[in-house]
Amino acid sequence: MNGAETLVQTLLASGVRICFANPGTSEMHFVAALDQHPEMRCILCLFEGGVSGAADGYYRMTGEVAATLLHLAPGFGNAFANLHNARKAQSGVVNIMGDHASYHLRFEAPLKGDTMGVSQAVSHWTRACSDAKKVASDAAEAVQAARAKGGQIATLILPANTAWEEASSFAVAGLPPALHRPSLAEVAAASRALRTPGAILMIDGPALHSDLGLLAKRLTKACGARLMQPFFAARFRRGAGVVKMERMAYRIEDNQKLLAGASSLVLCGTARPAGFFAYPGLPSTPDDPDTRLIELCSREMDIDWTLRALAAELGEAELTPDDFVPLDLPTPAEGPLTLAKVGESIAALMPEEAILVDEGITASAHLAPGLRRALAHDVLTITGGSIGFGLPNAVGAALACPDRKVVVLEGDGSGMYTLQSLWTMAREGLDVTTVIFANRGYQILREELAAMGVNEVGRNAQQMFDVEGPQLDWVALSQGHGVQAVRVDDMAGFNAAFAQAMGQKGPRLIEVVC
Amino acid sequence: MNGAETLVQTLLASGVRICFANPGTSEMHFVAALDQHPEMRCILCLFEGGVSGAADGYYRMTGEVAATLLHLAPGFGNAFANLHNARKAQSGVVNIMGDHASYHLRFEAPLKGDTMGVSQAVSHWTRACSDAKKVASDAAEAVQAARAKGGQIATLILPANTAWEEASSFAVAGLPPALHRPSLAEVAAASRALRTPGAILMIDGPALHSDLGLLAKRLTKACGARLMQPFFAARFRRGAGVVKMERMAYRIEDNQKLLAGASSLVLCGTARPAGFFAYPGLPSTPDDPDTRLIELCSREMDIDWTLRALAAELGEAELTPDDFVPLDLPTPAEGPLTLAKVGESIAALMPEEAILVDEGITASAHLAPGLRRALAHDVLTITGGSIGFGLPNAVGAALACPDRKVVVLEGDGSGMYTLQSLWTMAREGLDVTTVIFANRGYQILREELAAMGVNEVGRNAQQMFDVEGPQLDWVALSQGHGVQAVRVDDMAGFNAAFAQAMGQKGPRLIEVVC
Repeated sequence: MNGAETLVQTLLASGVRICFANPGTSEMHFVAALDQHPEMRCILCLFEGGVSGAADGYYRMTGEVAATLLHLAPGFGNAFANLHNARKAQSGVVNIMGDHASYHLRFEAPLKGDTMGVSQAVSHWTRACSDAKKVASDAAEAVQAARAKGGQIATLILPANTAWEEASSFAVAGLPPALHRPSLAEVAAASRALRTPGAILMIDGPALHSDLGLLAKRLTKACGARLMQPFFAARFRRGAGVVKMERMAYRIEDNQKLLAGASSLVLCGTARPAGFFAYPGLPSTPDDPDTRLIELCSREMDIDWTLRALAAELGEAELTPDDFVPLDLPTPAEGPLTLAKVGESIAALMPEEAILVDEGITASAHLAPGLRRALAHDVLTITGGSIGFGLPNAVGAALACPDRKVVVLEGDGSGMYTLQSLWTMAREGLDVTTVIFANRGYQILREELAAMGVNEVGRNAQQMFDVEGPQLDWVALSQGHGVQAVRVDDMAGFNAAFAQAMGQKGPRLIEVVC
Repeated sequence: MNGAETLVQTLLASGVRICFANPGTSEMHFVAALDQHPEMRCILCLFEGGVSGAADGYYRMTGEVAATLLHLAPGFGNAFANLHNARKAQSGVVNIMGDHASYHLRFEAPLKGDTMGVSQAVSHWTRACSDAKKVASDAAEAVQAARAKGGQIATLILPANTAWEEASSFAVAGLPPALHRPSLAEVAAASRALRTPGAILMIDGPALHSDLGLLAKRLTKACGARLMQPFFAARFRRGAGVVKMERMAYRIEDNQKLLAGASSLVLCGTARPAGFFAYPGLPSTPDDPDTRLIELCSREMDIDWTLRALAAELGEAELTPDDFVPLDLPTPAEGPLTLAKVGESIAALMPEEAILVDEGITASAHLAPGLRRALAHDVLTITGGSIGFGLPNAVGAALACPDRKVVVLEGDGSGMYTLQSLWTMAREGLDVTTVIFANRGYQILREELAAMGVNEVGRNAQQMFDVEGPQLDWVALSQGHGVQAVRVDDMAGFNAAFAQAMGQKGPRLIEVVC
């Protein structure tokens, strides 16, 4: 049995069941070993950003670690941006990165690069395997690391000879170390703060998509505190029947208003809110300088235990219908197309328990009021702010939940970063409907330039903000990848196309000219 | 004057005239400063891999450093693979990477990442600017570093506040340090070795596309040594009238035969040849263990001086017509399509002084015999082995040489990595003809798996090698980006489409089903 074979056996024995791959030559023995194990599902992505983004989406919807297969330093570089998003989402991912045979590294082969440097820049755990006989134990540790602290990026660098040289047997990942907890004294102090009028409890992580959200609602209702969630979250529940929770906004000025006058801000599973960027003349953080900030439980600590400990201190109020978002389905509107109406139509037509991957960027702000009126669904957002997350995440989410409809809200600028994921949707027959908001430019940049205090846009800036001359034809791009597509420019067209997509299984794309 | 303004002025004063950009919010003040300087040409690419690849192609054809504009750590990650190729091509590139305002970095903003780590993994020179008043001097040093040692990757990290805070004035890049030279004793020893029968002089870098190639030919003719070039080169001359030179092959077994029995192998501007990968049972290096290896002048040393010094020792023979590739234009063949015939047709129809960007991967081996019979042209190859180099490099080459026809030979697998570059070709009206060889899979991986000793391909491997189910439609993909395209599957179709593309200006794509 060679090292590659022990790797695949170790992954399987450790509960890793899916591998998103874009392999190259240095991973050929791993590919050969995968051939012996059809129980490992291999999903080909035509670009490594699709690989890492899919692993992220898969984890967000299952809590299970996926493996990726990446090709040396440049291949890892291509995966970097969506690993950044995955890291910020606290998704557990095991990257298997091939490298040259260890004895080959002293020569100047074209693909020789700094595998360790590029992986350490985004991974929580990185190791270069030194011996075929250590592949199994290293891989088991990688899986364990990916599951530690609520989800981490673990990267195992596998020199080609460790894959093909003789090894002995597989290993099984141990349980990750227990999560750290705040002290009882800290819980008691936070509870006292939450009982003070004007307090806010801000939660994130699993609390946004599990019964922990109900618990948080009951305990904040018991003590009279506000319950809030960050703007960007790996996954949160939204729509009819979902427990009511305030959500932070994108702009720091809006968040300053939201948080103004709070007596304390207790953080559980999240860090101190910060502006997406710093802007001249604005603070980095939106919280009121008079508010007491209590960092009770960081994102890598034991959120579950902490919320239960808070509940034990504060009690749990009974929830009433008023604590849940009421059913208020909009009716699809007709006439000229507006983003607000599109949001309502999506809400009206999207089935219950859909998964909505939101990379609509500037469009999403206009869509959100309508979307809040949809049936209950999960929302995945761009946690790391690095565009190109949407289509790959949808691939992972659809593979994780084959019985749920996935809807991607995608900007035309951001969609272009990882459009290759459309092909994987077609190959795997994934039930994903992609809605492209074609404003023909980087609208976010126009707005950010103004936020930076620059209000005149000259030729060079114009050239860098506009995606026109030529216009992208998303229908052609989608069909080129094997995904059926249609372009719409009024509400009747959108409603018909979206209703049809919701009524069928399989990938679809709708280009919305807006 | 703010830091961003001094940056743009410094780049211009230092001779940087073009900026390939995919900016984000953290670079908005730089964008605003660019607006004040229309003499800096800004080229938008819809993905950062297009940015870095274009800067590489631009340098290869001009020897001039281009600037890139990249967005924080994930944006740099997206640029990483083609920076790797540029590094291996010894292309000088100045990356301007934005970052959060320095005082914002202590908070957990979504886009906070390891800007220094990811850039150091591929850059020769990296600096994070600490003060708006230092932007100018740091930028001047970055340009100088990019020009040092024959071409380097220099990355300047620019926290947003150093762009918008007050600065004083611009700076001008100093000359790079003089290149290191071998000693006269080393030159004399190498000359003695070259006079010994069976010696080989291997050259790279500017010697492959300048008059230095003629000099190398004259001195090797004078001493009776063989003259050779590596397989992968940033740029080399080929075709009728070009000086004859042996070229290394891709496979190590072929290179072992080429180098067998050599008395010595003198390296000038290149490193010891190494296998693209290590393979079980094969050596890492193809040179004969009995050959004396003389590393006279490494790639970052003074190749020009060294060749002249060798010529001074060895003399220069007169060159005769027999030392140049004779004119032997093929005639376009008809009938069923084969890659060999396509190579001949391209050679027959391609104008003199075309620029041929070769990322045909497995197809290129079959095309090469025909292409060698073309009129004189420059060839750019995938120096770092990281696929996705072709289309972006062509963008840079076409901008560098607007009066020359650029032809890209592109695999369907590799083309998918950076297909967004087609849009930039359309926007800028670049005279680029892209030929996609649609073998519907990663043919190179099928061959490499066999080279690794694995001859059976099972379901998982098949799934990872084939790009079918669905087939990519490159005509649709191209048109979606605004580039006219046609699909051909016989020689008559190819000849007509390629002749038409050669006869017109502007971007075209031909999908060759093979």
